[in-house]
Amino acid sequence: MEKYENMNKEALQAELERLQQEYHSFQQKGLKLDMSRGKPCPEQLDLSAEMLRMVDNYIGETGVDARNYGQLEGMPEARRFFGELLGANADQVIVCGNSSLSMMYYLIDLGWRAGFVDSIRPWRFFNSIKFLCPVPGYDRHFRVTEYFGFQLISIPMDDNGPDMDMVEKLVREDETIKGIWCVPVYSNPEGTVYSNETVRRLAAMETAAPDFRIMWDQAYAVHHLTDELCSVPNILEECKAAGHEDRPLLFCSTSKITYPGAGVAALAASSRNIKHILKNLSSMIISYDKMNQLRHVQFLKNKEGIMEHMKKHRTILEPKFNMVKDTFARELGPCGIAHWSDPKGGYFISLYVPDGCAKRVVELCSQCGVVLTGAGAAYPYGIDPQDRHLRIAPTFPSLDELETASLLLCLCVKLATVEKLLHTQR
Amino acid sequence: MEKYENMNKEALQAELERLQQEYHSFQQKGLKLDMSRGKPCPEQLDLSAEMLRMVDNYIGETGVDARNYGQLEGMPEARRFFGELLGANADQVIVCGNSSLSMMYYLIDLGWRAGFVDSIRPWRFFNSIKFLCPVPGYDRHFRVTEYFGFQLISIPMDDNGPDMDMVEKLVREDETIKGIWCVPVYSNPEGTVYSNETVRRLAAMETAAPDFRIMWDQAYAVHHLTDELCSVPNILEECKAAGHEDRPLLFCSTSKITYPGAGVAALAASSRNIKHILKNLSSMIISYDKMNQLRHVQFLKNKEGIMEHMKKHRTILEPKFNMVKDTFARELGPCGIAHWSDPKGGYFISLYVPDGCAKRVVELCSQCGVVLTGAGAAYPYGIDPQDRHLRIAPTFPSLDELETASLLLCLCVKLATVEKLLHTQR
Repeated sequence: MEKYENMNKEALQAELERLQQEYHSFQQKGLKLDMSRGKPCPEQLDLSAEMLRMVDNYIGETGVDARNYGQLEGMPEARRFFGELLGANADQVIVCGNSSLSMMYYLIDLGWRAGFVDSIRPWRFFNSIKFLCPVPGYDRHFRVTEYFGFQLISIPMDDNGPDMDMVEKLVREDETIKGIWCVPVYSNPEGTVYSNETVRRLAAMETAAPDFRIMWDQAYAVHHLTDELCSVPNILEECKAAGHEDRPLLFCSTSKITYPGAGVAALAASSRNIKHILKNLSSMIISYDKMNQLRHVQFLKNKEGIMEHMKKHRTILEPKFNMVKDTFARELGPCGIAHWSDPKGGYFISLYVPDGCAKRVVELCSQCGVVLTGAGAAYPYGIDPQDRHLRIAPTFPSLDELETASLLLCLCVKLATVEKLLHTQR
Repeated sequence: MEKYENMNKEALQAELERLQQEYHSFQQKGLKLDMSRGKPCPEQLDLSAEMLRMVDNYIGETGVDARNYGQLEGMPEARRFFGELLGANADQVIVCGNSSLSMMYYLIDLGWRAGFVDSIRPWRFFNSIKFLCPVPGYDRHFRVTEYFGFQLISIPMDDNGPDMDMVEKLVREDETIKGIWCVPVYSNPEGTVYSNETVRRLAAMETAAPDFRIMWDQAYAVHHLTDELCSVPNILEECKAAGHEDRPLLFCSTSKITYPGAGVAALAASSRNIKHILKNLSSMIISYDKMNQLRHVQFLKNKEGIMEHMKKHRTILEPKFNMVKDTFARELGPCGIAHWSDPKGGYFISLYVPDGCAKRVVELCSQCGVVLTGAGAAYPYGIDPQDRHLRIAPTFPSLDELETASLLLCLCVKLATVEKLLHTQR
């Protein structure tokens, strides 16, 4: 097959008509598929069914009754469990409710409203606050800081993580830049793993703001899709060694280990941060759901137990990722109109289509009953300046559905591209 | 026995020595008891054990998979369930995580940070915000508004609820008074049930603030201790009828129905409020723990099911409340130095000791190993101007422990009173 860029107008017109016919036959199928969010599929959720039946005793190892009030910082065994996962001491961990996003929100709110231990004044007393957003990135991260009225600054990602030359230069000069969003392992949506050097530079860099925060979201730390179990240096240790102990705030949850709706989230930070956070949290809540914490620890046991459990997820997910990538290679490769990420873990594939075509692809898919993440979602304010990035979430649909959806997606990419080329040539 | 007020100095001195000996023998016992918080006892927690085993299917009645992301407003069956409990339509309810306190905090935060649907500007843009606190009341309510820097205004409670003449006068004149904390049924700590007139006046009163909020905490709505099942008029309906539909925010939870650490909380409000809250909440959290919501609905079924379940709680709690009240009557009655509330439900008994003695009683109890709620806790800023109120929480200790603790408490009240009388006569 000839590459689209080499086709003349007549060839493109013929291709357009062929694609439109194919599209029309997809429309007849009455599809109703959702590839918009990183949702585990029902089979993945079934993997944790045993957890709900195994716990009969809700008295923790230190005699704490998980059913009653108290222990805001979490069950001791749960703090140890998440400490191992995040690379922190148990007493540097707070084990929370079901949502790590709500803890990230709370900490941004805390910095804005009351300030951190090293804040000269709360962020709300600045005329303008800025936050660094590596792009493409996680829409819900960006949205939290957008909601608080911060100015979002896009930082391009490459294979090593965010562009550190740019980050270092910006944070050195501007005290209103208060932090950066990071998904260091299998980033959403690229699947990028930050290089050791990137992590060390983030830890060591000089910041004009004394209370600069690294929002370190280990959402996919154990969500491997290959035998290469990628990881990054311990940001807590790196920051401490660089004299910036209070800089990082670490987050994780079992949302994509057990249940997205009913998992357990945790945060880790310096002891000074933890003390400050607990003191403020105590005005808001008496305690989180410790029964669910105990259930999780008894089911997953420790990091080794998690790794075993995650292999079962991989068995379900790997064929889905392969299906999408294979379809892309077969359908889009020959046309020379797209490239995509090849993640070793996480929940997404990034697909790059020709400039100015992403929105049209989403529209075309939607008109055929397949919902994609909105084009631009991975960029601050939902605006992809080149309108070329699509975040593909292959986890939720069945393999059959995924095959259909991927074929339709490729068709729509081709259709949008040919439309664009014809329009440009006109 | 002679009343203390009628004793001369010599008689008081003899009584002091007798009490001190008695106190000394209590000190030998090495007690370690906690009557400080309204915590259910283990036997109460056991009442819900079946709930954890009964649910095998987490697909809700409309096909929603409770295990996965989504449905921020809660499972439809859970919205209906809490709607029945709170007297609201299902679509006026948001079912949340395990903590109603955190939802109250969030709504105070929302008013302060962003404002409500009827706010002219967010509360933080006022130089000073005031909030009405019926006293004695719930320390954690007061603390939320204290944490946000509001000025707390004490409103005396009587048998009908807060002093409405005072409330009406204040809110009519001062637009910086933004709300009132209410526990309308079996109030914490008096056990007061608001009269119909009080509820109607709260709904109908004219407020200078267009965005005045009634924080209506139905914490003990079904927590009856007698056959008289007390209730109050529907505040949503009353406010709507008075043209103030957006005024009330209703809260409840199953913390003292199933598990304090792992129950389900809910809020209800006007449709306009609910829409505004959901829109703001969506920046913070993807969804609450819907599996726990489903568990609760399947276990408790409906209001009738709750009422049946609450009878079991009453069987455990009624003897404890009687034990405390009987001991007070026997030990304190003859001395004529105290009076106490006789609640028909809820979790507390208010004990009033002679002015200036409450702190000393807490200190004396503590030195004997019995922890009481700090004196003054039921008042804004933790300051009881007369230092005479004690909040007694009889639910957690066993009946045996409670007998010992009540006897010690009465002894300490007598000791503190005699000390005071002798000091005054000197």
